[in-house]
Amino acid sequence: MKKAVVLLSGGLDSSTCAAIAKNEKFEIYALSFSYGQRHSVEIECAKKIAKFLKIKEHKIIVLDTDIFKNSSLTENIEVPKNRKGSGIPNTYVPARNTLFLSYALAFAESINSFDIFIGVTAVDYSGYPDCRQDYIEQYQKMANLATKTAREGNKIIIHTPLINMSKGEIIATGHKLGIKYELTHSCYSPSPSGLSCGECDSCIHRKKGFSEAKIPDPTKYVV
Amino acid sequence: MKKAVVLLSGGLDSSTCAAIAKNEKFEIYALSFSYGQRHSVEIECAKKIAKFLKIKEHKIIVLDTDIFKNSSLTENIEVPKNRKGSGIPNTYVPARNTLFLSYALAFAESINSFDIFIGVTAVDYSGYPDCRQDYIEQYQKMANLATKTAREGNKIIIHTPLINMSKGEIIATGHKLGIKYELTHSCYSPSPSGLSCGECDSCIHRKKGFSEAKIPDPTKYVV
Repeated sequence: MKKAVVLLSGGLDSSTCAAIAKNEKFEIYALSFSYGQRHSVEIECAKKIAKFLKIKEHKIIVLDTDIFKNSSLTENIEVPKNRKGSGIPNTYVPARNTLFLSYALAFAESINSFDIFIGVTAVDYSGYPDCRQDYIEQYQKMANLATKTAREGNKIIIHTPLINMSKGEIIATGHKLGIKYELTHSCYSPSPSGLSCGECDSCIHRKKGFSEAKIPDPTKYVV
Repeated sequence: MKKAVVLLSGGLDSSTCAAIAKNEKFEIYALSFSYGQRHSVEIECAKKIAKFLKIKEHKIIVLDTDIFKNSSLTENIEVPKNRKGSGIPNTYVPARNTLFLSYALAFAESINSFDIFIGVTAVDYSGYPDCRQDYIEQYQKMANLATKTAREGNKIIIHTPLINMSKGEIIATGHKLGIKYELTHSCYSPSPSGLSCGECDSCIHRKKGFSEAKIPDPTKYVV
């Protein structure tokens, strides 16, 4: 079996992405990150999904919480509710996907894997620059110059199976693959009792996705 | 003062690079990494150089030692002595500069800095793919797609002031800037008593550099 490194946050996108990688017969090595995110409950979800998908190895990497500043996900800044308009919201975390992909790249090369999966999507998303196709393409080019693996003639591929899917299509795809979405978490700003807020970008996209896919949403929302 | 994030290993290249950034009037935020490297003494040297250069902030980031495998710098594999020929040696660490630059990128964006310094050189070096100009250019392109900073019209610059310098030129430059090279460490495989081996790539380049620069080498070598 070919090995793949999969970035697994515990959200619905990355969980679907992991299920797709599994369905493509990769042996999965998943990475999750603890970086002081306010929705750190997602890490417990990542563990559940990893177990559910019976993946080969799941590493949880604890980052220095000083690295990511100026974000409402890591600092005491209010997460926007029912956000309107464009622009990059304050939930953006500085260079997060670049750091996560770079961990994946180092780990992939360490275990002789050439395949990295990341569940970014540029359809129903918050406009984060590091979720777009041109960013991923540039990252892949860089990775193929950076590494011994690539200099030896192998090609490193950054797989983004969700990038052009709507949230409804993502959920429909994961549903077909048997993902239990009740194991996943999306809300940026869960209540102390663990309910999803229902008003952050991530909850709004999640609700829209289940509605579009015509699949019952197992999530408990405050509103 | 403009802020710069400088990757500072504690070796002679990164120390010279930090001195150059300081000379260019940047306020310096240095990052060093502890990743289970066999020459972890370099971290103590990084601390000394940071103090010597009176930099603004020095962060030492402890990485999960499982990330970098298959390298003689992190595993029980012999470091080559008096290596001949080309090819990437076993001292290569998987995607190390990519991971370090990605930390620098996240940290830079967190502190509103657009300038990152890395002391890579592609002249007297070990052939590591992530020390070459085309890799750095591609990384910079990627960084300028990845980040909110760049989307807001700022340009992230990866400064590589040493990239075309021989080791002799690097040492002559640092010497002019007042760097005390006795505070730096290069050897990949120091003896238990802390002597430099004198036979690894890094020692050989260091010896050659001092000889070319006609500056006394303060290093104590085994041979």
